[in-house]
Amino acid sequence: MLTFESSQTQGAKAIVEKLVSLGFQKVKHRISTLDAQPASEAGDVLVMVTGELLIDDEQNAQRYSQVFHLIPDGSSYYVFNDIFRLNYS
Amino acid sequence: MLTFESSQTQGAKAIVEKLVSLGFQKVKHRISTLDAQPASEAGDVLVMVTGELLIDDEQNAQRYSQVFHLIPDGSSYYVFNDIFRLNYS
Repeated sequence: MLTFESSQTQGAKAIVEKLVSLGFQKVKHRISTLDAQPASEAGDVLVMVTGELLIDDEQNAQRYSQVFHLIPDGSSYYVFNDIFRLNYS
Repeated sequence: MLTFESSQTQGAKAIVEKLVSLGFQKVKHRISTLDAQPASEAGDVLVMVTGELLIDDEQNAQRYSQVFHLIPDGSSYYVFNDIFRLNYS
């Protein structure tokens, strides 16, 4: 499931459609902190990232926080939960 | 497991000792956003909170983000993962 600001989207196809609809051409991520913890005995990983976004050609970065819950899938992981929020001052 | 800024602490007893050692007397939380998602078929819940902290008698709030992974335990939940980060501008 993806939570993007206050909107929730479930399922891979709907999430791709949501991301494509966001209406900017490019976005640059500057990561400030990245923390990870084991989240289950099955090998799940919980990751929190905080940082800044630069959208298209804007000069003012916007701070954000994002959480991923990753589940092992063979030699890789898939994203089971994704919560994104901008951090307004 | 607790991640508090860049320090990791594991186990309930060690986490209580860590929180007691933080060296402030009181802290007021002002929550700006709260998002939750189901995180497993067993009823786990992933919660992300963003907001502001006012520590002791300081006037300047500090922005923070915090994630909790809650696991069902009878009619309640326990905190399995807790990641806390201040959001510096």
